Amino acid sequence: MQFCEKCGAPVQLAVPAGDHRPRHVCTGCGHIHYRNPRVVVGCVPEYQDRILLCRRAIEPRRGYWTVPAGFMENGETLQQAAARETAEEALAEVAIGSLLAIVHVLHAEQVHVFFRARLAAARYAAGAESLDVALVAAADIPWVEIAFRSTEFALRRYFEDKAAGAEPYHFHTIAQRLQPERGG
Amino acid sequence: MQFCEKCGAPVQLAVPAGDHRPRHVCTGCGHIHYRNPRVVVGCVPEYQDRILLCRRAIEPRRGYWTVPAGFMENGETLQQAAARETAEEALAEVAIGSLLAIVHVLHAEQVHVFFRARLAAARYAAGAESLDVALVAAADIPWVEIAFRSTEFALRRYFEDKAAGAEPYHFHTIAQRLQPERGG
Repeated sequence: MQFCEKCGAPVQLAVPAGDHRPRHVCTGCGHIHYRNPRVVVGCVPEYQDRILLCRRAIEPRRGYWTVPAGFMENGETLQQAAARETAEEALAEVAIGSLLAIVHVLHAEQVHVFFRARLAAARYAAGAESLDVALVAAADIPWVEIAFRSTEFALRRYFEDKAAGAEPYHFHTIAQRLQPERGG
Repeated sequence: MQFCEKCGAPVQLAVPAGDHRPRHVCTGCGHIHYRNPRVVVGCVPEYQDRILLCRRAIEPRRGYWTVPAGFMENGETLQQAAARETAEEALAEVAIGSLLAIVHVLHAEQVHVFFRARLAAARYAAGAESLDVALVAAADIPWVEIAFRSTEFALRRYFEDKAAGAEPYHFHTIAQRLQPERGG
């Protein structure tokens, strides 16, 4: 960022009094701009032993597969965000279940949260941000075409847990961007 | 916000193409500014059946008690953030344990995440943002002087779970600010 959101004057990096790291501080009014991780929320929607996957119509990772997920908005819960993203990307209605995974994607300054979910019916279609949506059996998951490592982590834990008959949650941390061809 | 962080021109609220809610859009360069919930992370540090509480030296809720907690920073995990906040506010070293609670504080546009934790030793002191720090037994928790409803929720679940000998996680949603005397 270059300018203050409050007064429009230039900002500069400085460590405010009592703080421990540099922030964008306004040279005009002194306003301190904090940058914090953003939350991405998704779910693994299941219907009769198959999983709903979306093929991305947008960058990053256009053409690759993922579960419905997107940025959490103000005014909604994590579960509401996961259900909304599924409605938007897969035009499908889900009941959100247990917490599956929380993945810290440090280089992207994001926290990815995944839930287990159930599709109410086999009704779905590609939303504006999807090229295709499909119900996929565990044996047919296109692992090499999964868009993000966080999604792959969540999906692998999902199937392992299902085989074990348990629903634990999992933490994971991704610290660095893959180079050159693979996204976050 | 009134001004674009990229170019300093005024912003206005508008729904961008393909979006579903109003954003601050720059009238100069067109940059879209997204606002998303911020993550607050804390822990309940235990040492020999007592809990480490901090009495707040800063607003909001100065003089009231809480567990060590604060905004998650970029580049750290939730667990690292919880341990850092404990080091800053209580000058204490903790080992972060299981996930205790996730509380959506909708009116504050925050998600509060709490972990169970263990103090390495009975070494602690008030950090810059604390008036006092104390190890408190369950029977002595000052419930009417707990600073935030999210903290109260996490503490009550902590003691209930401990009595039950289990470590589940809990979701909770706080939708509205309490009026007039009690904070988020």
